[in-house]
Amino acid sequence: MTLSHLSSIISFFLFTASISGQKLYTPTLSLQREGVLRDPERAVSASIADDFETFFFNQTLDHFNYRPESYTTFQQRYLIDSRHWGGANSSAPIFVYLGAESPIDGSPTVIGFLRDNAAQFQALLVYIEHRYYGESIPLGMSFEEALHETNIRGYFSSAQALADYAAIIIHVKQNLKARDSPVIVVGGSYGGKLASWFRLKYPHLTVGALASSAPILYFDDITPQDAYYSVVTKDFKEASETCYQTIGDSWSEIDRVAQEPNGTSNLSEMFKTCKPLESGDELKNYLMSLYAYAAQYDDPPRYPVTVICNGIDGANTTENGILGKIFAGVVAYKGNSACYVNPPTNVSQTDLGWGWQVQYTLDHI
Amino acid sequence: MTLSHLSSIISFFLFTASISGQKLYTPTLSLQREGVLRDPERAVSASIADDFETFFFNQTLDHFNYRPESYTTFQQRYLIDSRHWGGANSSAPIFVYLGAESPIDGSPTVIGFLRDNAAQFQALLVYIEHRYYGESIPLGMSFEEALHETNIRGYFSSAQALADYAAIIIHVKQNLKARDSPVIVVGGSYGGKLASWFRLKYPHLTVGALASSAPILYFDDITPQDAYYSVVTKDFKEASETCYQTIGDSWSEIDRVAQEPNGTSNLSEMFKTCKPLESGDELKNYLMSLYAYAAQYDDPPRYPVTVICNGIDGANTTENGILGKIFAGVVAYKGNSACYVNPPTNVSQTDLGWGWQVQYTLDHI
Repeated sequence: MTLSHLSSIISFFLFTASISGQKLYTPTLSLQREGVLRDPERAVSASIADDFETFFFNQTLDHFNYRPESYTTFQQRYLIDSRHWGGANSSAPIFVYLGAESPIDGSPTVIGFLRDNAAQFQALLVYIEHRYYGESIPLGMSFEEALHETNIRGYFSSAQALADYAAIIIHVKQNLKARDSPVIVVGGSYGGKLASWFRLKYPHLTVGALASSAPILYFDDITPQDAYYSVVTKDFKEASETCYQTIGDSWSEIDRVAQEPNGTSNLSEMFKTCKPLESGDELKNYLMSLYAYAAQYDDPPRYPVTVICNGIDGANTTENGILGKIFAGVVAYKGNSACYVNPPTNVSQTDLGWGWQVQYTLDHI
Repeated sequence: MTLSHLSSIISFFLFTASISGQKLYTPTLSLQREGVLRDPERAVSASIADDFETFFFNQTLDHFNYRPESYTTFQQRYLIDSRHWGGANSSAPIFVYLGAESPIDGSPTVIGFLRDNAAQFQALLVYIEHRYYGESIPLGMSFEEALHETNIRGYFSSAQALADYAAIIIHVKQNLKARDSPVIVVGGSYGGKLASWFRLKYPHLTVGALASSAPILYFDDITPQDAYYSVVTKDFKEASETCYQTIGDSWSEIDRVAQEPNGTSNLSEMFKTCKPLESGDELKNYLMSLYAYAAQYDDPPRYPVTVICNGIDGANTTENGILGKIFAGVVAYKGNSACYVNPPTNVSQTDLGWGWQVQYTLDHI
C-alpha cells in the first residue's frame, strides 16, 4: 500500500477521530444479517424446521470456578438433524455448528454448509445455541435482565461458551454411544473464531474446525487499528473512484452546513430524517454505519456498495450538491421510505448483546 | 493379571470397603515429600538461593468471567534464574516450572531437571508458584482464611492456575523482549498434569511439556478405581511375599483384637500410640496411609517398602504374633520415636489445600 493510498483512506474516514465520544460502528460479525430471513429463498420453511429435534441441556453456569453459584445450571438449547447420520458404528462424522451472537432458530436454514454436506458424509448435524441468546438464558431471566445484572452478565464470555459446547458435545456423544465419531466444529464470523478457539482449547473433542469469515487475527498488536475501515474505504474506491471522492468530501460539507444558522434543521430536511438531527455528528455516524454495513455484506446478487455508489454517481443534484448526492446514495440503498436516517428499529438480541460480547472476548486468547 | 492375583490384591486392602465413612489416603502428588528438605544433600544452600531473583506478578483472580470481583488481582510469586540464558536474540529456550500444591521456595533446589540442563541449553529458568500456596494467596489472606471462605476458595482451581501461568509467561516474554524464545513447561506429579494440560490448552505459548510422574490418565472411566492400591499391594508383594501375606492377614487380626474387652487399649499399648486409639479402624487407616506413602516414594537409596518388609519379616514376635510383626515394620520405617501412630504433626499447606485441589481438578479436562 502506497503512502498516498493510505492518506486517501484516512481522509475518507478522517472524521472518525475528530468526533469526541463518538461510538464507532462495531461489525456484529453476524451471519444473520438484516433482511436475510425476509429473503423468500432463505426463509424458514416448515419442512426444513421439521427436520430438527430440539433439546435442552442442563448447562453449568461457571465452568472454571467452584464458588457456590458456580454450580448453578441453566437450560441450553440445541438442535439435532439425524436424518443422514451413518450411526455410531460407522465412521460417520458429527458436524457441530457453534451458535454465535443470535438465537439459534434461523441458523439451520441460513447456514448451508452443514446441510449441503450431510448426505455425502452421512453426518449428524448439531446446532448449539450460544449462552445468553434465544432460549438459552440463565436463571429463567429475560435477555435484558441477564445483561442488566453485572454478576449475571459476568458469565457472558466466550471462554464459558466454548466450555458449554464441550459439555454438550460430550453429552450428545455419550447419549448416542458415539464416543469414536469424529467431530467437526463449524462457525462463521464470531462463530468461526469460536470454532478455531474450540479446536485449540478442546483438541480431544474435535478433529477439525471450519472457521468461515472469521477475523481470528484481528487484534491490535497484529492488525492496524484502522484496518477494518481501510478496507471499507477501499471497497468504495474500487466500486467507483468518483463515489469514493464524493463521500470523502461529504464529511467536511456536513460539518460546514451543520454550523450554519438552522444547520441541523436544514440537514434534517435534506435527508428527510425520521426525527430531527441533534448534530452533524449524528448524521455522520449514521452514514458511516451504513457504508460499513454495506461493505460487510457486499455480496451478490445485489452488491450494496455498488448500489450506493450508483445512487451517488447518478444523482442529479444541481441544487443540493455533495449532500444531495450522498442522500441519493442512501435512497438507492434503502429504497422508498417514509423517512431516512435513524429510523425506529426493533433492537435485536444481537444489537444488545454484541457490545458485551466484544468486550468480553478480547481477553480470551 | 490373573484372577488369583487380583483376589490377593483385593484381600490385601479388602478392609478399605468395610470401614464406614473411612477417609482413603489420597496421594498428594507432591514432589516435596516429608523429609526431603532435611536431606543434607538436597538442603537449600545460600549459594543456590542467591541464583534466583524473586518477582511478583499482578495476577487476575478470575480469568474466565467478567463479574465485578473477577477483576480483583493478587500478587503471584515467581522466581527467575537468568545466569545461563542465551538471551532473546538467540534461540535459547525458557524452561518454566509449573509450581504445584506447595510453596515454590524449595522447588528450585529439589527439582533437578531445569538446573541440570540450563547451561547446555542456555536456558532461562522460571519457577512459578501455584495460586493459593506460599506467598501467592489472594486478597492478602492467610492460606487458612482463603480456604475457609467458599467464594474465595472457589477460585482455587487448576483451570485458573493454568491461566495464571499463561499470563506470567506472556509477561516475562514481553519484559525480556523474548517473544520468539521457545517455552518448555515442566512439572512433576500434579504439576506434570498441569504441564500436559497447559500444552493442550495454550499451544501458542509452549512448544513442549515435560510431565514427570504425572497421572494424566488416572480417571475413573479410564483406570480401575482400585488401580492405585493395587499397585501399592503389588509393590509389597514384590518386596517380600511373606511380608505381603502378613499385612494381608493383619487387618482381620486388628478387627479381632479390637473387639476383645479392652481391645483398643491393648492395640494402643501394642503400637505405643501417641494417643489412645478410639477404634481398630483408626489403626488400620494409619497403617494404610503409611504403606501407601512408602510405596509412593519407594526410591533409592532407602527403598521404604523394603525397609518396612525387612522389619516385618525379621521381627522376633513370639509374643505378639502378626501385630508384633506389623509394629516392627512401623518401627523399622519410622525409627526410634517416643510414640507411634497418629503423632502430632505440623499441618502443611499441601495437607490443607490438597483436598480442595483434588476436588476442583476432576472436572477440569
